[in-house]
Amino acid sequence: MTLTGALLIGAAQVPATAGTMKALNPATGELIGPEFAFGGADEVDRAVRLADEAFDSYSHTGLAERAAFLDLIAGKLEAVKDELAARTALETGLPAAQFEGEIVRSAAVFRKFATVVRQGRFLQATIDPAQPDRQPAPRLDHRLQKVALGPVVIFGAGNFPISYSVAGGDTASALAAGCPVIAKAHNAHPGAAEIQGRVIQEAVAEAGLPEGVFSLVRGAGNEIGEALVDHPLVRAVTFTGSEAGGMALYRRAQRRPDPIPVFTEMTSVNPTFVLPAALAARGAEIGANLVQRAMFNVGQACLKPAVLLAADGPGYGELRDAATAEVRKAAARTMLTPGIHDSYLRNAERLEDDGAALIGAGTAPAHAWDGQSLLYEVTGDQFLAEPALREEVFGPAILLVRLTGTDQLLEAARAFRGQLSATLHADAADRAAAQRLLPTLERRTGRIVFNAFSIPQEVSYASTHGGPFPATSDSRFTSVGMGAIERFIRPVTYQNFPDDLLPQPLREANPLRLWRLVDGELTQH
Amino acid sequence: MTLTGALLIGAAQVPATAGTMKALNPATGELIGPEFAFGGADEVDRAVRLADEAFDSYSHTGLAERAAFLDLIAGKLEAVKDELAARTALETGLPAAQFEGEIVRSAAVFRKFATVVRQGRFLQATIDPAQPDRQPAPRLDHRLQKVALGPVVIFGAGNFPISYSVAGGDTASALAAGCPVIAKAHNAHPGAAEIQGRVIQEAVAEAGLPEGVFSLVRGAGNEIGEALVDHPLVRAVTFTGSEAGGMALYRRAQRRPDPIPVFTEMTSVNPTFVLPAALAARGAEIGANLVQRAMFNVGQACLKPAVLLAADGPGYGELRDAATAEVRKAAARTMLTPGIHDSYLRNAERLEDDGAALIGAGTAPAHAWDGQSLLYEVTGDQFLAEPALREEVFGPAILLVRLTGTDQLLEAARAFRGQLSATLHADAADRAAAQRLLPTLERRTGRIVFNAFSIPQEVSYASTHGGPFPATSDSRFTSVGMGAIERFIRPVTYQNFPDDLLPQPLREANPLRLWRLVDGELTQH
Repeated sequence: MTLTGALLIGAAQVPATAGTMKALNPATGELIGPEFAFGGADEVDRAVRLADEAFDSYSHTGLAERAAFLDLIAGKLEAVKDELAARTALETGLPAAQFEGEIVRSAAVFRKFATVVRQGRFLQATIDPAQPDRQPAPRLDHRLQKVALGPVVIFGAGNFPISYSVAGGDTASALAAGCPVIAKAHNAHPGAAEIQGRVIQEAVAEAGLPEGVFSLVRGAGNEIGEALVDHPLVRAVTFTGSEAGGMALYRRAQRRPDPIPVFTEMTSVNPTFVLPAALAARGAEIGANLVQRAMFNVGQACLKPAVLLAADGPGYGELRDAATAEVRKAAARTMLTPGIHDSYLRNAERLEDDGAALIGAGTAPAHAWDGQSLLYEVTGDQFLAEPALREEVFGPAILLVRLTGTDQLLEAARAFRGQLSATLHADAADRAAAQRLLPTLERRTGRIVFNAFSIPQEVSYASTHGGPFPATSDSRFTSVGMGAIERFIRPVTYQNFPDDLLPQPLREANPLRLWRLVDGELTQH
Repeated sequence: MTLTGALLIGAAQVPATAGTMKALNPATGELIGPEFAFGGADEVDRAVRLADEAFDSYSHTGLAERAAFLDLIAGKLEAVKDELAARTALETGLPAAQFEGEIVRSAAVFRKFATVVRQGRFLQATIDPAQPDRQPAPRLDHRLQKVALGPVVIFGAGNFPISYSVAGGDTASALAAGCPVIAKAHNAHPGAAEIQGRVIQEAVAEAGLPEGVFSLVRGAGNEIGEALVDHPLVRAVTFTGSEAGGMALYRRAQRRPDPIPVFTEMTSVNPTFVLPAALAARGAEIGANLVQRAMFNVGQACLKPAVLLAADGPGYGELRDAATAEVRKAAARTMLTPGIHDSYLRNAERLEDDGAALIGAGTAPAHAWDGQSLLYEVTGDQFLAEPALREEVFGPAILLVRLTGTDQLLEAARAFRGQLSATLHADAADRAAAQRLLPTLERRTGRIVFNAFSIPQEVSYASTHGGPFPATSDSRFTSVGMGAIERFIRPVTYQNFPDDLLPQPLREANPLRLWRLVDGELTQH
């Protein structure tokens, strides 16, 4: 595929109206062509109007047709795997092999959502049959299904240029729901965004769908994002990124004359709690493993286990030593952007200012934007006294918290804000302490991991990538896993309808053989 | 029950700290005792802290225990039926028989939610079993259930003093979800609120639950509502009332450092479309019936069919005449509060200023706050030109829109903002026009009614009482029907857990015999 740098507005390739940019190779500092087009409010308006025009038709596609479209995208993603992985590696400084895996997983996510669409359970088809003889008044026939919200804007993440970006889970779940998508490309990897966008644009055309089902826009500053969030025809927004960025979009959308749902996935330190028996038995193993996981993607992952808490006692020294040794082995690697690298340095300094002791460091940076792995330690008292120690440092830094005992561990657990995940390492003898800790973790997180690690994240039916604020802006939803589709659908009840005017999923004969809730009981008949 | 006028904070009856009020009988203008206590931010803080303390225990009650608690409330509500209906009639000027029905239906709603809790489907228990041999990496066991959000604040409605108030569907669904409730009493019917509150307070004590599961507060102005919405331990808010009131609370909650979900049900004119064949065949019947439904509760219902649209042609004159005759028969009746009565007069004047012609009026008011039934008519051109004609007039007013044909009817349908319901009257010959209209209605409403009326609302599995803004603040939810519980729950994933640490609904043996999604397939095993 020859990159053109154009905006993708419906079926069109649209040239720049507001300047251009080049991509940056952060490993070399080199700028890479082509010139990538910036658009503005006019391009946003065209993309959103096309999406709105496409909505009635696309949202009423049959389940089989919509599923086939998602499968088509999956196949096309796999077909550009080598090219997309190579370009993404160039724009991020991360290894191409990592992106080959990410592309395979993203394609699998589109296929999984195709299955979700075929199964049709997400429609939550529900039938309360008429009860003409009910007293004191008859009941009319009521049937409910979920329908798509409307055009959805997706802000791609900086740190996962595929799976949380243009052809990632947000797009897959919104398209599965029946919503047209307007993706806002992240400027850290414009070429990767273009390749993904063109794959979807091609799939839309090949499937014979209205062109407005997908657009990809790009802009210089915040204006394009603001125009997207403000557009009256946009019905929902998703965002993955920083708390500041996410909350700016969230609050802006809530100030609209008609507020719209915004799901932002923002910040999490994914605390890991090691209970005494597990610490004594496996302290060194846990310490080394955690560091390895934390350094994935140069520590630039929302699920990085950033804070490890354990009470001083048997195994603590071994954990500390093993973690330190592992950090020392870690090579400094290029971070995603110069801006992220600079924030990393500032935030690491902040940790030291807040009293964290540096107890281990990886190899020294060789290039300008290399991130050096850093291991810090604080006492439980320090940790409880300084809220800033509980905040995310985006990059390869880990904080070890040495607590006075299980009571202080519980107190520390209660001090955290909302998290995407929390992890518990516990052996049989830790059972009572685990039971005390679990309700506290449940209130503060979307996922609790037992004797394993928060990374990697599964994408399946039982996945939650969500959690109380500030992990996300709405703990009732997830952005990863099959439940992600629920962000984009709403219930509609059809009362007293003749069968032939009902949507297919609700017709009496159940032509799609869906699972439906009939008079309060699940049935496939 | 002797009314005390106290605030109900946990198990305590708390006297006034910020003045008192008496109830008003709007039919006589008489003030009715006792003195009802006002509280302030301190009382809010006590109630919310108690709710937060009760949360871990209450949210982890077994399904059977929680269901029994809801059934207990239902029984206690029925036991006070006569007393509560009489007091509510006194405080509203509406007939006691109407409230007897409302109490019976509210008790039924608590029992229905008890069934929902026992069935446990709302937990959405989901299991992705471990796949130790999966390539390239094994999958760990993942299990998901929905858990309760935390303390919920419920703002009771003014127009339905029971079913949308202290012991209404919001409270029933929040308690069913496992959330403690802090109800804010509506000052239009403080005695009715106290009776309902004491019923729930007694049920909490009898069930042996922590006292913080329920509190009832009351305040003079907006301060108490603001304190409730601002309280850091409150996790969700529901409100039923005006667009101005709902949006003030909504926007306030979104300005919190940690925004929380607010479901506001606000405004809807529930447009009714009559297609040509139905109009020709049944114009008079539709006109008369619609007026009868619209006048229920003196027009003070969120589901009032306020706007009737039909193209001029055979049957239009009959519809108009029948509606006019029916309005003329309608007696002026006391409105809920002097404030609502004054707004009604102002809004009816506004309709006339906006060009609506008064074509029928009910009997003249006999008392100060009687609402006179009014029937207006405009042309389709007027209706399309003046957005204010599409806004709610709370009270017994109806607007008839005389359109030029089916094309203008479609144009008018597209002009509406979000609605709780829309109704379509169509005969066999109207089928093509109905099919053209349906996608437009689906985008704008939570419920489409066919050849029936928007009032009454069923409370069942397939109910939706929701819809796009401004009908509600979040179209993805409903405040009536079994789906109302979804506002108050969020997913949590338990990864790689030993069986005995899992919540009961997720244990391998399925001890509760729940429907669960196992490896993508629904099963009860």
